[in-house]
Amino acid sequence: MLAVSTQPDVISFAGGLPAPELFPVDDLRAAFDAVLSTDGPGALQYGPTEGYAPLRAYLTNRLAHRGIMTKPEDILITSGSQQGLDLLSKVLLHARPSVLVEAPSYVGALQAFASHESRYLAVPMDDQGMCVESATQMLNHVMSTSEDRPALLYTIATFQNPSGVTISRERRLALLEFCAAQQIPLVEDDPYGELRYEGEEVPPLRALPGGEETIYLGTFSKILAPGLRLGWIVAPQSVIARLVISKQAADLHTDSLVQRAVLHYCMHTDIEEHLSHLRAVYRSRRDAMLSALADYFPSEVKWTRPDGGFFIWVTFPEGTDTRALFAEALAQRVAFVPGTAFFMDHLGSNCLRLNFSHVEPARIVEGMQRLAKVVTAHSSKT
Amino acid sequence: MLAVSTQPDVISFAGGLPAPELFPVDDLRAAFDAVLSTDGPGALQYGPTEGYAPLRAYLTNRLAHRGIMTKPEDILITSGSQQGLDLLSKVLLHARPSVLVEAPSYVGALQAFASHESRYLAVPMDDQGMCVESATQMLNHVMSTSEDRPALLYTIATFQNPSGVTISRERRLALLEFCAAQQIPLVEDDPYGELRYEGEEVPPLRALPGGEETIYLGTFSKILAPGLRLGWIVAPQSVIARLVISKQAADLHTDSLVQRAVLHYCMHTDIEEHLSHLRAVYRSRRDAMLSALADYFPSEVKWTRPDGGFFIWVTFPEGTDTRALFAEALAQRVAFVPGTAFFMDHLGSNCLRLNFSHVEPARIVEGMQRLAKVVTAHSSKT
Repeated sequence: MLAVSTQPDVISFAGGLPAPELFPVDDLRAAFDAVLSTDGPGALQYGPTEGYAPLRAYLTNRLAHRGIMTKPEDILITSGSQQGLDLLSKVLLHARPSVLVEAPSYVGALQAFASHESRYLAVPMDDQGMCVESATQMLNHVMSTSEDRPALLYTIATFQNPSGVTISRERRLALLEFCAAQQIPLVEDDPYGELRYEGEEVPPLRALPGGEETIYLGTFSKILAPGLRLGWIVAPQSVIARLVISKQAADLHTDSLVQRAVLHYCMHTDIEEHLSHLRAVYRSRRDAMLSALADYFPSEVKWTRPDGGFFIWVTFPEGTDTRALFAEALAQRVAFVPGTAFFMDHLGSNCLRLNFSHVEPARIVEGMQRLAKVVTAHSSKT
Repeated sequence: MLAVSTQPDVISFAGGLPAPELFPVDDLRAAFDAVLSTDGPGALQYGPTEGYAPLRAYLTNRLAHRGIMTKPEDILITSGSQQGLDLLSKVLLHARPSVLVEAPSYVGALQAFASHESRYLAVPMDDQGMCVESATQMLNHVMSTSEDRPALLYTIATFQNPSGVTISRERRLALLEFCAAQQIPLVEDDPYGELRYEGEEVPPLRALPGGEETIYLGTFSKILAPGLRLGWIVAPQSVIARLVISKQAADLHTDSLVQRAVLHYCMHTDIEEHLSHLRAVYRSRRDAMLSALADYFPSEVKWTRPDGGFFIWVTFPEGTDTRALFAEALAQRVAFVPGTAFFMDHLGSNCLRLNFSHVEPARIVEGMQRLAKVVTAHSSKT
């Protein structure tokens, strides 16, 4: 089905891809050229597992602008955030029976944790994000059966994948308090945090009072180019030390040339201007999709209204099966991801995820018209 | 101690680095430039977990020249061979108690396997490579204690790290027969196979009769540039399918740009000429080191005479402690790796590994003179 959804006449809201026309190709070409011209042997040789020191120093600075105070030694460069999740699962999940995740959550994180056979405690969300009260109840239940406490709590706190929801400041503080009280490491995955299209900035958990010991995952994938596979983890020194050992066994180190080229790009380009451009383009795509939902979709359908990121989460009346809808949509050359993909327990069958970052506004309107027809026909059948 | 050994006035035979002055910097610069000029958006976007299809097709062709007949679908592109080892350990070691390895063996492989808490069955080697009779005896002993059979047998069959030894053709056939009879997956790691400086080519195990089901790891690290982190695994389709799932959770895919740039380099450069140049330079370094050993070292010291690769393995009389020697050598500004680093059971204390690829011949002579003085002084003390 995924193969069908990438055919050129299909308008796909299924993937989670950035818009390739926004990649700063020429600036990156200049960066690779400059690095290979001036530092070729270094850029092509083995490098330290921790990452290229000047890049770690740069990230320290850049994170300070987002309120995250850290040191270069507390940053590990990774081959994308996905590797960060994999390394964390190796280091933290070992012999622990469960992880707390948002329901729904990012499939790739669930996969990384799954390889260690951990059970998911999938915490419900509302429009403020993960429900801390539910997490408390679930934890009490688990602990009453004398199980070990969960290995970690995983959250995409800002513009979540797949829901688009951002955890409110109050809820963040409650979450930090919960994790501190229960001694559960909190892992914040923040791929979309810099892609805000409206509303007021909410600081990363790592930047809030009580957040100093949390683990923070960042990436260049959504703000620069995912094909380069470049991300980082900020964590307490004791965790970083174990992650470095794990990373050494996993791939020795992240590409030396790519680390240097991306740093060169960041130092020689106005990255804030680049981000402004991304935000403007993605904002118009989000707006096109939200308008189309309001204009064309039946009133019993509900959806989130994300302030940033890549995704909108759509909820149909109970009893709707979005996997059946998916087949009908593909026949009309439009695609999305059925909601069950983001749960481990077959929930979400009446939900679906829409991606708006990868499709131009006119195609978004066309695709949403197609999808609305399918939805209307489907609901009249049931 | 490692930090000291990288100080500029120390002549280091410790690392396993290729010579950076041999990296084809300008050709790679042209390749990155060409790919970003013609295929920028594709090179910077997410890509398939299996790897860039044209690169897999190219490798199929290239491997055929070494006698390895395979299909693009049976190749998984990895972030260096180290990732191949890590993925294999995830897929094959699960719930198996042990792995068969050469004694001594590559530290990075031992680390990758160690993360799964497997026990090592370290098989002794002679000048023909891993002793198949010893392996049989060890296996019989293990199986007689009703343990499960080992998860895999790991070998660097050609110009082994750290010993420099190449398994003879006859011994390879015996090893294949042993693994087939015992139903133990054979993993051949071949980073140095194309760096032969003398003697007759011995085919990879994967290219020999009965080798069709073995797993083969290749890499661009030693023939092109390790900083790019680009390798591959050839394996039966059932194994590849599981490796792909594991790789997806590990880092989604290997860098899209690097895969394209290296392919571009291979298609537009005379890589055979590049390899000839590498071989000529490394041959002269090996010869310089072998001559220095013969000229300056006491007669009770023995060493291997590798036909290729990066390393010479030196054995001192029983009772010598090469860790003590290391400290004395560093004081004289020369470094190596003590033999115990390549065993998991504290063997090898009278051995050491010398790397000859990273140091120019004149410095090799100077470093070996320093080392010989240390050795002579050390043996006169004991």
